[in-house]
Amino acid sequence: MFKFKAIGVSEGLAHAKALVIKEEDLTVVKDTITDVAAEQARVTDAVEKAKKQIEVLREEAEKNIGAAEAEIFDAHLLMIDDPDFIEGMTNLIDEDKVCAEYACFVNCENFQAMFRAMDDEYMQARAADIGDISKRILKNLKGIADNALDSITEPCIVIATDLTPSDTAKIGSKPVVGFVTRIGGRTSHSAIMARSMGIPAVAGAGDKVDEIEDGAELLLDGAAGEVVVAPDEATLAQFAEKKKAEDARKAMLAQFKDKQGGTSDGRRIVIEGNIGTPDDAVRVAELGGEGVGLFRSEFLFMDRADLPSEEEQYEAYKKACEIMAGKPVIIRTLDIGGDKEVPALELEKEQNPFLGYRAIRICLNKTDLFLTQLRALLRAAKYGDLRIMFPMISSIEEIRNAKQILEQAKDLLKAEGAEFNPDVKVGIMIEIPVAAVCADMLAKEVDFFSIGTNDLIQYSCAVDRINEKISYLYRPLHPGVLRLIGMTAKAANENGIEVGVCGEMAGTPGMAPVLCGLGVTNLSMSASAMLAAKADLAAHTYAECKELADKLVAASSATDAEAMFAEWRG
Amino acid sequence: MFKFKAIGVSEGLAHAKALVIKEEDLTVVKDTITDVAAEQARVTDAVEKAKKQIEVLREEAEKNIGAAEAEIFDAHLLMIDDPDFIEGMTNLIDEDKVCAEYACFVNCENFQAMFRAMDDEYMQARAADIGDISKRILKNLKGIADNALDSITEPCIVIATDLTPSDTAKIGSKPVVGFVTRIGGRTSHSAIMARSMGIPAVAGAGDKVDEIEDGAELLLDGAAGEVVVAPDEATLAQFAEKKKAEDARKAMLAQFKDKQGGTSDGRRIVIEGNIGTPDDAVRVAELGGEGVGLFRSEFLFMDRADLPSEEEQYEAYKKACEIMAGKPVIIRTLDIGGDKEVPALELEKEQNPFLGYRAIRICLNKTDLFLTQLRALLRAAKYGDLRIMFPMISSIEEIRNAKQILEQAKDLLKAEGAEFNPDVKVGIMIEIPVAAVCADMLAKEVDFFSIGTNDLIQYSCAVDRINEKISYLYRPLHPGVLRLIGMTAKAANENGIEVGVCGEMAGTPGMAPVLCGLGVTNLSMSASAMLAAKADLAAHTYAECKELADKLVAASSATDAEAMFAEWRG
Repeated sequence: MFKFKAIGVSEGLAHAKALVIKEEDLTVVKDTITDVAAEQARVTDAVEKAKKQIEVLREEAEKNIGAAEAEIFDAHLLMIDDPDFIEGMTNLIDEDKVCAEYACFVNCENFQAMFRAMDDEYMQARAADIGDISKRILKNLKGIADNALDSITEPCIVIATDLTPSDTAKIGSKPVVGFVTRIGGRTSHSAIMARSMGIPAVAGAGDKVDEIEDGAELLLDGAAGEVVVAPDEATLAQFAEKKKAEDARKAMLAQFKDKQGGTSDGRRIVIEGNIGTPDDAVRVAELGGEGVGLFRSEFLFMDRADLPSEEEQYEAYKKACEIMAGKPVIIRTLDIGGDKEVPALELEKEQNPFLGYRAIRICLNKTDLFLTQLRALLRAAKYGDLRIMFPMISSIEEIRNAKQILEQAKDLLKAEGAEFNPDVKVGIMIEIPVAAVCADMLAKEVDFFSIGTNDLIQYSCAVDRINEKISYLYRPLHPGVLRLIGMTAKAANENGIEVGVCGEMAGTPGMAPVLCGLGVTNLSMSASAMLAAKADLAAHTYAECKELADKLVAASSATDAEAMFAEWRG
Repeated sequence: MFKFKAIGVSEGLAHAKALVIKEEDLTVVKDTITDVAAEQARVTDAVEKAKKQIEVLREEAEKNIGAAEAEIFDAHLLMIDDPDFIEGMTNLIDEDKVCAEYACFVNCENFQAMFRAMDDEYMQARAADIGDISKRILKNLKGIADNALDSITEPCIVIATDLTPSDTAKIGSKPVVGFVTRIGGRTSHSAIMARSMGIPAVAGAGDKVDEIEDGAELLLDGAAGEVVVAPDEATLAQFAEKKKAEDARKAMLAQFKDKQGGTSDGRRIVIEGNIGTPDDAVRVAELGGEGVGLFRSEFLFMDRADLPSEEEQYEAYKKACEIMAGKPVIIRTLDIGGDKEVPALELEKEQNPFLGYRAIRICLNKTDLFLTQLRALLRAAKYGDLRIMFPMISSIEEIRNAKQILEQAKDLLKAEGAEFNPDVKVGIMIEIPVAAVCADMLAKEVDFFSIGTNDLIQYSCAVDRINEKISYLYRPLHPGVLRLIGMTAKAANENGIEVGVCGEMAGTPGMAPVLCGLGVTNLSMSASAMLAAKADLAAHTYAECKELADKLVAASSATDAEAMFAEWRG
């Protein structure tokens, strides 16, 4: 038996066998070959195998996700059947006497260059598809098994370097009961998805993941960040006790499911869920969420080679509204850049992406992209209380520009005679320090605020939230952060608009009373945290929350504030 | 004739011939050779040439900069004479039949790896020296001329991609009357140095620099960012007029040299200079600076392979104090990371360096490095009104930790019987938003504040100050930024401590009255901006400044504030 501690990113207890996902080595070496025919045959085999794999993926996607996602694979199948594409490889082997791997690599580069040179955004985006297909062929050539996640049939704890959003999405339909990753932290995307799916997870385990063998028996405590490998009898017994206590707590929390959020003396705090895909809303509704406080629309754009069409977006937004059955659904417009990539946009690499060209800055520049999304949102708003939220706002000018493009979208839809709801509420994220400092002025321009604490802390403390070297400086209870939240809430309250928090802070145990005391009216978090937040609030009066918040704001340091908070929590 | 506009980064007018510095192509290709002896002879020649070049550099450094800088070249000479180092190259040519360039490249990698593997920080830092020497040999092999800056004898305007700090330092001793760079902006280091040397400069000219031929006649307007190539008669006449007006303005400003800074009704504002090296203080003193408000000590650490010793630092700090003859000299402790590299520390590359491991965060971690600097500062403080300033402070904990290490430095010096001044004043940079928001608490811990507006704007508006794609969001007059400055000044005033501004904003024409109106008491800027700042202040009463500041702070957007400011300036 051995155990280690890393960053607990999604709470819960799990006991299962390890499924270790190996890193893929896709390095290509230019080897010279002599038997041309044999090498060409390797290519043909790898291509045939790839075709079958894509067909299976296509079917699964259609069944589990939807027709639109399945279409991507149709495009892949068309391309892989193109004789020019395959001859590109076999000719290279014949002419240059190079190995199949190298031919695959060069052929990919050639085709990508060709597509990128075309004066058509759609064709340019096909370059990414060529990359996907070539990678698949290369993996077949190198004998690297297809994604191990696809073949899971028994309950297991997945061990990996990191999980892409598509990996975590895959996990949702498999009996995965937990995961441990080498890199990442509380705010990395796999962590956020783990919490939204309610799967215990530990991140940032570093080299310790190398010591876990495939098939080893594991115990995982996602709250404590603890992993036990090959536990002994005593540890197993202890763990079983802990699990029992957890189950009891779950039963206690279940009674809050159909209750409204608020303090014991009736100060109303709306408890909502954060989602990445429309299907995530099912869990929010099931766990008594009073709405969706944050739909991260960028998830529709990531991990794919093209951009989602207006129709595809419309269907997704509409679905979320329908699942929430009239409850508010706040959809944040495209928040990409920073650590979130959209291959089809081919954005340039930046020196400081978090301080760069991202979110609303991209949308106000690429207005076609923005208009498509706004049209889809306006149309979907017929099916529920859909609200539009703009991210990364730093000025009134940006709000006005964004609203002007929204009006343009309405004009276009009206001219086309399309059905849409022109009266959607419009809000902004408060996540840039000057926006909090100027909240009194911004409040006059919008229907609601939502404070993005992850970015707000990052910028106001000048600390990259995914840089482990300085993670000790990322402190939600820094009095400066609390003051900025307080300023924002005060401005919203004085202007009679709602003010939510949709960052990680909202769902952190015990934080709901603090934020309530600061004047926040809505809290949106991963579905799995909602019940505990309701319970936290119901255990206190508003006066108690306010007193706590006042004390924390007046603390001279984060250390002091953290000590006060810990004492208050008992 | 043709002209273009780019970013004016240092004001002034220049008329001279262009000196175009070509980009060096140091790509190495693995070529196979047959004549081993001839290829080995190429190596020997290139090494001999390198030796002579280093000897010349050594002499120049000793003459122009100082003995300590010259020592670096002694180390280079020792290494290049090492038979193992040269045989490393000649043996590779013999054994692998590769070209001299490739042998030089591989030999460099091998030696660097060897040094890096040694368990001694000093020896590890030698890896950078190996890199320097090998680069020099490679340039000789490729027939790339040594730095064109070295051979300047006639007045010229330098055209280059960018200038390193050592390039700009070199320019100081040459008849360079201006420069134009392809990349960079107002806050890039070459721009800051240009302003401190009073040389007109234009940055961010992009591909336009390619259109300037070496030797072409140029007109440069550093304030307007305008460059005219091969001007016609009419343009030359216009330019001469402009120059006359500029000279008249200079004469007007000269009368402020010996006057104290302040408003017309006697509100005192101390006008100080920013420096990068002790010698820069000469110009600050000459132009009537009332002190040094910011000595960027990191310049002693950059562009070199090793770290400066305590003695070397002591001499530099002492020299600055002596030049300023009793006037305050605020020395900022090591502010590296972000966009400033110190090779000897071999810091890891980060995803968002501006939000990463930098400045005080490094010093509180590498306490040996910090102690050495603090000891040098305490000892130098015997020679003037030296004050110590900590950068990138985000919390009281950091201040207390830094002060504790300062006490430790005092204890060590005392135990050794060394002479030092234990009563130095200690201040902090306010450049992180939470520090401004919590300035009321931080003010109780220190003797002074200095607001670093470059970083404060960057963080509070979430905009990388060197990312051109979003430079439109970098706005010093954003009401949120002004509010943060106002909060900081108010806290300082209420606690009776000085509060300066040492970012670019302090020296921006017309900004002095705004900052005075916000409650700031000291302004530190490039030497060349000091007289204009005094003139700006002397033209207004404090009440006028305050009224202007109040108006700008209440503006609803940066656009409105900028319009108000422009109107006020007339």
